[in-house]
Amino acid sequence: MARVYNFSAGPAVLPEEVLKEAAEEMLDYKGTGMSVMEMSHRSKAFEQIITEAENDLRQLMNIPSNYKVLFLQGGASQQFAMIPMNLMKNKVADHINTGQWAKKAIAEGKLFGKINVIASSEDKTFTYIPDLKNLEFSNDADYVYITHNNTIYGTKYNELPNTGDKILVTDMSSDILSEPVDVTRYGLIFAGAQKNIGPAGVVIVIIREDLITDEVLPGTPTMLKFKTHADNKSLYNTPPAYGIYICGKVFKWLQNKGGLEAMKKYNEEKAAILYDYLDNSKLFKGTVVKKDRSLMNVPFVTGSDELDAKFIKEAKAAGFENLKGHRTVGGMRASIYNAMPIEGVKALVEFMKKFEEENYKA
Amino acid sequence: MARVYNFSAGPAVLPEEVLKEAAEEMLDYKGTGMSVMEMSHRSKAFEQIITEAENDLRQLMNIPSNYKVLFLQGGASQQFAMIPMNLMKNKVADHINTGQWAKKAIAEGKLFGKINVIASSEDKTFTYIPDLKNLEFSNDADYVYITHNNTIYGTKYNELPNTGDKILVTDMSSDILSEPVDVTRYGLIFAGAQKNIGPAGVVIVIIREDLITDEVLPGTPTMLKFKTHADNKSLYNTPPAYGIYICGKVFKWLQNKGGLEAMKKYNEEKAAILYDYLDNSKLFKGTVVKKDRSLMNVPFVTGSDELDAKFIKEAKAAGFENLKGHRTVGGMRASIYNAMPIEGVKALVEFMKKFEEENYKA
Repeated sequence: MARVYNFSAGPAVLPEEVLKEAAEEMLDYKGTGMSVMEMSHRSKAFEQIITEAENDLRQLMNIPSNYKVLFLQGGASQQFAMIPMNLMKNKVADHINTGQWAKKAIAEGKLFGKINVIASSEDKTFTYIPDLKNLEFSNDADYVYITHNNTIYGTKYNELPNTGDKILVTDMSSDILSEPVDVTRYGLIFAGAQKNIGPAGVVIVIIREDLITDEVLPGTPTMLKFKTHADNKSLYNTPPAYGIYICGKVFKWLQNKGGLEAMKKYNEEKAAILYDYLDNSKLFKGTVVKKDRSLMNVPFVTGSDELDAKFIKEAKAAGFENLKGHRTVGGMRASIYNAMPIEGVKALVEFMKKFEEENYKA
Repeated sequence: MARVYNFSAGPAVLPEEVLKEAAEEMLDYKGTGMSVMEMSHRSKAFEQIITEAENDLRQLMNIPSNYKVLFLQGGASQQFAMIPMNLMKNKVADHINTGQWAKKAIAEGKLFGKINVIASSEDKTFTYIPDLKNLEFSNDADYVYITHNNTIYGTKYNELPNTGDKILVTDMSSDILSEPVDVTRYGLIFAGAQKNIGPAGVVIVIIREDLITDEVLPGTPTMLKFKTHADNKSLYNTPPAYGIYICGKVFKWLQNKGGLEAMKKYNEEKAAILYDYLDNSKLFKGTVVKKDRSLMNVPFVTGSDELDAKFIKEAKAAGFENLKGHRTVGGMRASIYNAMPIEGVKALVEFMKKFEEENYKA
């Protein structure tokens, strides 16, 4: 069995240790005589799995006790609706447009109220984060919404807008757990699991308790009320139990790695290897403004569609998978989430150097 | 490693062969060098997984080409809202109340329109299916809704109401794939995977094409429109990929077992062992009217709470797990889904006989 280096933007690489444990426990989880997939979600064994997962996430992210942690379904796309349905009291929200997922949140929000786009980087194909100094928030906005890391364009908020009294909401799908976060800056953080946490089919919501109320928009389904899930500790109905179990294993793996401070250091080290090479390469170059670069998603191009295609093909043959960039950016993208080992990034850069030597023509 | 006999009502026992294959493929799915959990949902490998899963389900259930098969999230509880949001044109639906899940669908439907309960078996703790001969459907009802198998109460529709031109909608969560079904009788069939198909976190919807439209109730989220998922072959956003992969393995397992005719025979044989014993036991008795008995969920009682508790405790010690009945019925419940081997049912009955000998006092 040969594992590849998987640079997929999501679903994405998971720690090999986690997968090995899951395989070993597949037919008999810790002497229960059954798989976690076969377990009643009301059983003691599963209750322990979900409680530990929540507690470990709280410890890792230093989540204050006045925030609830919810394990939900439907991905980020469903959050795009749940958030306005639950938080839009005045039916107004301010959004910053930093890419495709930000745009999807805007479009969905418009089903429920007025969305003011208070800043955008669409003019330059989302290669930067808009200036946050002179933002003008709407007086009646129920919240301000940002996409913390932009998976497709490879940008990231390295500072946050100062929203004053306004609730700050963020989609952290592609960089949650990559570094420490000050949760208290946010009213709500959500993240689809399938990039930096676990398998697809789980979305984690971290929400300040005072935002969880029965006052939702008319016609909000029971399953789309945060209160339903908060009141039932994510067990209102059968949760995506196996996915939560894998997330829990990833949380323990992160704790063993030293937590989020250590992960930040590791991720900075990994990203620097790739960015330093890109900054010095004659063939490849990064597409994002330096100060707004993501630690997780690194888009780059050669400037030639033909060479890009050749690179992707040869890289795949050499065991580097999923390096093709998103169609709106073109070129390549290396997603180097927590679970991508530094050896993978080093090997990729060595391969790029070789490709550059063979293909660069001055 | 000792596997138990797991009589859980859901999440429930899965075929051991399926779990073994999943464990073997955990780190490297068929030479891809990655787990299915790590795979882009846009990859060729995953496209093949989801396409095969759909095709195999179509073959097993003989699903006509004018029906779409959708792999969604949120479980039955989310369907309780999606169905009215998508199908209620007149904002009226007729429901038959046969238990707790039927009641939940009724309650949720009331968020969106008028629900007429046209029959109910609540008067006798849902121990039977109401008479279907003299049902009066509402003229303006958009659909008629039934719960095909009632997990908690152990009843099942052995015939269907004749709804004429009205669309028949059913929750088949706890008996889908247990026997052949005439899909053409229905406008929509849905089933949470975690009972008779696969792991929790996947819900399968089989819907007649003409019912998939853009005319949904105002404020319906994009993710809650059947059209969103039908137009995108269940890949509008990242689907619960690993769950779908396991469902696909279960479909292949069922094909190898001879399909649904063979499963029906096997399930009838299994259920008969248990029901025959219950009908002759002096200690235990089934709680359901004979003609409405489920093949999947078998509730039974001794008549003494003390003896029930003793039985559950001793059964657990002997390797029979999750036999405790639902709190609203009391006593015991053995869920004997497709993946429960006949040996498990035989062993349970042997154990019950022994318990009866030791504990029955004339």
